[in-house]
Amino acid sequence: MQQIAMLGGGFIGRFYAESLQGQRSRDKVVAIYARREETAQQFAADYGCTFQSTDMEAVIAHPDVTMVCIALPNNLHAPAVELCAKHKKNVVCTKPLGRTAAEALHMMQLVEEAGIFGGYLEDLCYSPKFLKALDTVKNGALGRILWAKSRETHPGPHSNWFWDKEQAGGGCMLDLGCHCVEIARNFIGKDIRPVEVMCWAATQVKPIDAEDHAIALVKYENGAIGQFEVSWTFRGGMDLRDEVMGTEGTIWINNFLRTGFEMFTTGKASDYVAEKAESNAGWLFPVGDEVNDLGYNHMFTDMFSACEAGREPAETFYDGYVVNAILDAAYKSAETKQWEPVQLPVWRGQEGVEQASNLVDYDADHYLIKEEMTHYGKKKLILKEKATGQIIEREVS
Amino acid sequence: MQQIAMLGGGFIGRFYAESLQGQRSRDKVVAIYARREETAQQFAADYGCTFQSTDMEAVIAHPDVTMVCIALPNNLHAPAVELCAKHKKNVVCTKPLGRTAAEALHMMQLVEEAGIFGGYLEDLCYSPKFLKALDTVKNGALGRILWAKSRETHPGPHSNWFWDKEQAGGGCMLDLGCHCVEIARNFIGKDIRPVEVMCWAATQVKPIDAEDHAIALVKYENGAIGQFEVSWTFRGGMDLRDEVMGTEGTIWINNFLRTGFEMFTTGKASDYVAEKAESNAGWLFPVGDEVNDLGYNHMFTDMFSACEAGREPAETFYDGYVVNAILDAAYKSAETKQWEPVQLPVWRGQEGVEQASNLVDYDADHYLIKEEMTHYGKKKLILKEKATGQIIEREVS
Amino acid sequence: MQQIAMLGGGFIGRFYAESLQGQRSRDKVVAIYARREETAQQFAADYGCTFQSTDMEAVIAHPDVTMVCIALPNNLHAPAVELCAKHKKNVVCTKPLGRTAAEALHMMQLVEEAGIFGGYLEDLCYSPKFLKALDTVKNGALGRILWAKSRETHPGPHSNWFWDKEQAGGGCMLDLGCHCVEIARNFIGKDIRPVEVMCWAATQVKPIDAEDHAIALVKYENGAIGQFEVSWTFRGGMDLRDEVMGTEGTIWINNFLRTGFEMFTTGKASDYVAEKAESNAGWLFPVGDEVNDLGYNHMFTDMFSACEAGREPAETFYDGYVVNAILDAAYKSAETKQWEPVQLPVWRGQEGVEQASNLVDYDADHYLIKEEMTHYGKKKLILKEKATGQIIEREVS
Amino acid sequence: MQQIAMLGGGFIGRFYAESLQGQRSRDKVVAIYARREETAQQFAADYGCTFQSTDMEAVIAHPDVTMVCIALPNNLHAPAVELCAKHKKNVVCTKPLGRTAAEALHMMQLVEEAGIFGGYLEDLCYSPKFLKALDTVKNGALGRILWAKSRETHPGPHSNWFWDKEQAGGGCMLDLGCHCVEIARNFIGKDIRPVEVMCWAATQVKPIDAEDHAIALVKYENGAIGQFEVSWTFRGGMDLRDEVMGTEGTIWINNFLRTGFEMFTTGKASDYVAEKAESNAGWLFPVGDEVNDLGYNHMFTDMFSACEAGREPAETFYDGYVVNAILDAAYKSAETKQWEPVQLPVWRGQEGVEQASNLVDYDADHYLIKEEMTHYGKKKLILKEKATGQIIEREVS
Repeated sequence: MQQIAMLGGGFIGRFYAESLQGQRSRDKVVAIYARREETAQQFAADYGCTFQSTDMEAVIAHPDVTMVCIALPNNLHAPAVELCAKHKKNVVCTKPLGRTAAEALHMMQLVEEAGIFGGYLEDLCYSPKFLKALDTVKNGALGRILWAKSRETHPGPHSNWFWDKEQAGGGCMLDLGCHCVEIARNFIGKDIRPVEVMCWAATQVKPIDAEDHAIALVKYENGAIGQFEVSWTFRGGMDLRDEVMGTEGTIWINNFLRTGFEMFTTGKASDYVAEKAESNAGWLFPVGDEVNDLGYNHMFTDMFSACEAGREPAETFYDGYVVNAILDAAYKSAETKQWEPVQLPVWRGQEGVEQASNLVDYDADHYLIKEEMTHYGKKKLILKEKATGQIIEREVS
Repeated sequence: MQQIAMLGGGFIGRFYAESLQGQRSRDKVVAIYARREETAQQFAADYGCTFQSTDMEAVIAHPDVTMVCIALPNNLHAPAVELCAKHKKNVVCTKPLGRTAAEALHMMQLVEEAGIFGGYLEDLCYSPKFLKALDTVKNGALGRILWAKSRETHPGPHSNWFWDKEQAGGGCMLDLGCHCVEIARNFIGKDIRPVEVMCWAATQVKPIDAEDHAIALVKYENGAIGQFEVSWTFRGGMDLRDEVMGTEGTIWINNFLRTGFEMFTTGKASDYVAEKAESNAGWLFPVGDEVNDLGYNHMFTDMFSACEAGREPAETFYDGYVVNAILDAAYKSAETKQWEPVQLPVWRGQEGVEQASNLVDYDADHYLIKEEMTHYGKKKLILKEKATGQIIEREVS
Repeated sequence: MQQIAMLGGGFIGRFYAESLQGQRSRDKVVAIYARREETAQQFAADYGCTFQSTDMEAVIAHPDVTMVCIALPNNLHAPAVELCAKHKKNVVCTKPLGRTAAEALHMMQLVEEAGIFGGYLEDLCYSPKFLKALDTVKNGALGRILWAKSRETHPGPHSNWFWDKEQAGGGCMLDLGCHCVEIARNFIGKDIRPVEVMCWAATQVKPIDAEDHAIALVKYENGAIGQFEVSWTFRGGMDLRDEVMGTEGTIWINNFLRTGFEMFTTGKASDYVAEKAESNAGWLFPVGDEVNDLGYNHMFTDMFSACEAGREPAETFYDGYVVNAILDAAYKSAETKQWEPVQLPVWRGQEGVEQASNLVDYDADHYLIKEEMTHYGKKKLILKEKATGQIIEREVS
Repeated sequence: MQQIAMLGGGFIGRFYAESLQGQRSRDKVVAIYARREETAQQFAADYGCTFQSTDMEAVIAHPDVTMVCIALPNNLHAPAVELCAKHKKNVVCTKPLGRTAAEALHMMQLVEEAGIFGGYLEDLCYSPKFLKALDTVKNGALGRILWAKSRETHPGPHSNWFWDKEQAGGGCMLDLGCHCVEIARNFIGKDIRPVEVMCWAATQVKPIDAEDHAIALVKYENGAIGQFEVSWTFRGGMDLRDEVMGTEGTIWINNFLRTGFEMFTTGKASDYVAEKAESNAGWLFPVGDEVNDLGYNHMFTDMFSACEAGREPAETFYDGYVVNAILDAAYKSAETKQWEPVQLPVWRGQEGVEQASNLVDYDADHYLIKEEMTHYGKKKLILKEKATGQIIEREVS
């Protein structure tokens, strides 16, 4: 059982608490820190916390607390981790870990030096669909992974600090891209080095300094390509989709719109307000169990079980740092308009991975390009002659 | 915290245990009864039970046990409940409650007379999508409910006792129809009396005595209509869909195929075996988190929280009995080819509910039939003259 | 090339004309009859007709006309066919053919006795998806057909005559059920006799005499079951889905909502009015090419090519009559609450078809009930012993 | 009526002929040129051509021919157009127009100087869904267009010449990217100058010289971004999807998989071979009417009607040339790893278009960033103070 101190009583803090104390959970949020007194009070009342304060250190240091959960604006992650390290309290931190790789690396080193548990709350790498997909990919059902794309777009975040570049450290790319980068890393292999990034980012719609739309490609050492598409200007709800291509298969995941719950309402009979939908009438696509479907339950289960068992969770501060490093390269690329190398002063994965060969032998003299069944029931082969490089067709029955 | 005795170590018993001890659950399966020694042994090893036996009464009566969970073939539900009543142990029972309404009513009365907790494990009335849909319907977003259809079809159950009419009490209609009936009852209103049933059932494919395909209509006192479609002969996986029509809206729920996880695999690279799919290659549609998506988690949460709080769960033995009564009428109708009345010697809902009026006033002289927007931007009305009954068109701008 | 007289210049007449003169068509609508002068004028102007009149006989008899297309209210179909027979003009007639089987049979006999071409404009049996599905079923990909369901529901028709029982001959069941019945007949086999019908129908919402919601089951001589669900009270657009179950497969067709065109609009930037949608904002699901996707193009191609080649079209007046006979039985069943026999004084299909056997031999001593692959890679069999009837499980590797 | 000479009797030539002579078409393919005698013979027999030859010029010059349709490998497009210009025959040419912009520009100039009709057969800009989507976008329902993505991936083309870089001029990017580029151009505005391109391309799987996977971003002068994803290594059939984001809405088009026809078959009962699917068992997703759904019918209707009316078709040789210019930049970018300018020696669109302002006034002192409805029914505003740039939250009821 974990006794949790929640740092931050806003949207994400409440979401976490729903998950942490949901169902038949044995864990308990016992303490709350919020910057504003009334937020702390409301949170404590709603979730039955026994301690509340606007003094972050007091909450972290409270003797009942066995685990600190950081649910604060991005610029406050590092200071909070510093206090956890000082008081030797295990800690899990919301995404992105830092505003930059330097900040994230610092946080990782603090945790490792203090010998405390550090978990990176990358919920979308714990959604039930993602977990099953990852397992499927690891079992080889898709063959060699060629491309992993993740898309997260919606009409913009709920709180004002997200829109302020100083507090947030960036725009939609840092806010949403951190999910996408880690999803692709998982499918391609976390031990495969991300080599370089090409990114386009722009402020197309909102009167802000940070980007509200970005697209990037991430090249991995084994020749696989990661891709992300993120935006705060999408209209229609929350679009949350992953696509993976392998030599032997494909996976498409949809985490929100079009997941088997479809509803039409004229809006006449009730003042039903659908969450995250942009309207309360017409066709709506709700999600049944948001805290479970978006991965929160499985995430905290892994975090706390890992902590109790003395093992690493699936997503660590090290992972958060690698994600930040990729996003740093993306931001730089958006400015320089060049492919930018991913700077990884600490790298714990494989070195010098080579790309797979494209040459599949058909027979001693030919490589196989394609094999297909014709309408008239014969097998048609497209082959490349090894000697001449010429491409020929051949039918076999 | 509940300490559970599981009765039955087969497919559904293991499924329940996954849910009961899943995530960060505070509950524990402590004892297992199975008819075969090796099943009990395997189950105890897999789920960490401290007591195992092939003597059902010994398991129920074990002092550590605070809650009995019946996961046995249908013909053993009543004997198990009798033992729970005798030993004053709270009990939750898998679906269908009985093989007939008489059997179910007997079980309900045993529980009520013994003063123990009795919960009816109707998991599909706890799936996250269902819960949100029901909440939406209760809030009025669909207006008055006109029709509620539930469909459950798959290629047939896993264990041999299902196919034996004596042990099972029926075929696919009892096995799957019990879900569908209760889903429709929830949407239409559990306090609205089911009046009569018309059913078609046949043994179209399998060499068995019971039906392998059935369709039925259930009329409710307020004029609403329930419908179910069930089969053990469906090809393509498990089809689990609900549809609800109201005067102001529509809800479509899909619980299995097409829920946002789509996968293609050539099958060459691994021996991946997808659960409940009929093949391990081609396009597959897995479900992310089956115990959660099919309602098991929310079901046990409600059951145990209700028991601990001294309140009724959402699905009680009374509900199980009403479902059985509707299915009894369906079986009778399939034989007599008549609409058969639903026999409810005990009824705890509303009496004498009247149908809603279809007459919507447009003005003093007309009823409104339809209002629509034309392509050229005018509103077109179809009205019925109160005096003459004549139907006219009128355009208003 | 056909020179067509259109009878009726309303919604469906215009829809037909769009199809008939669409793309690079060689056919031409040359004459228009409408009950109101201004309708005829507008139609003639829009489609370039050279002759227009409010005298139906003058239009039919016009020497340029080689083909008459009936697009009139249901009560005018028979009088129009009488005139076609009198003037020996080939004729195609919109659905339903008659208001009753007696009326339809009369029309069929008129056409056959006059030796003219008679085509039944059952467009939904010509939609591209339907044609490919039917071809697939005929090729045996689904095995033996067990069940064919068709559903057509929307918020009600556009013109006032539909809502008037005398002119229309019925409510949503005659209007929409005629499609559904013929779709199921095609999948099950047009030469298989429909034996009896059980129907529920009600006027749940609209202030009209006819039914606005109906569900029916149609039993065929070979044991297959047809089903239809029709309504004028559905909210959410037009729901047009077919489902077919066979011993070896399943087909699901969606003809309208969810066909690959999804659109969200705030409605702020334009006054876009989507056709048949219930709103002009939120998520909308348009169809790309309605006249093609709903079968009009393929229907007229078959009709005219059949006429020119002296062969029968896929849908004849005989088919229209069988459909009416099934609907007559449905209307009677809705009143008597009994399964009602389908009365077919003329029947041109097979006689005395027997149901297929359910007994699949596994070996000399057992029938096969089910075969499935276990998670641990073994094949599990459920078998029935021929001698004892007992059901057993067996594993083979 | 058009009398068509088909150049090329392979896969695409036959597809075109199906469309040209399909339904009730008034047009006729009268002559066929093929490189191999037996191909010409077979084609002539199948489609009823009266003239066939392996001499291209003889076919083009044949006096019956009013329109030439080029369905040849990419390296033969220019020579064919030269002969059309020489013999003053109207011509429509398959995609891509040229292998490079220089080649395409040359073809365009030949056509313009000869005063003949030149149509660019970009079928995917004529699919019914695309046409309706484009119309919707032009009507403003999506507001200002921010991003248009098109994806076309499948397991590789049918004929050997595609895989040979000399004949094809490139790999999947030229073959498939030409569609995607023109789709995005249409949504963003054909008169908006494409400015620069960033592209990643690789040969990930096939033993060929050209790329088998490519992703690119195309920047337009007004700040909109185009994107394409193309591959010959996708597993699962043909993936053909477009997505468009605007300030007021979203459009998603799916042209192949998941368009409302879903089918499961065990494969036991027939040797059904589905087109373009990778298997003949399991879940399959056929398209109903391929020639119509993929745009061929609407394309030829526009082409021939334009030619007969003396107007430009929607897709001209000029468009084909612009597409080639964008792809030239993409190929260069894939090599240089830079954003490469699009070289357009001829440009007929707008000059100096400026990006739209992001500043939406809320009141005199604030810009509006976001407005949303809270769960508790209040409107929440996120505003930016004009004077300070500070971002604040405000609730209004």
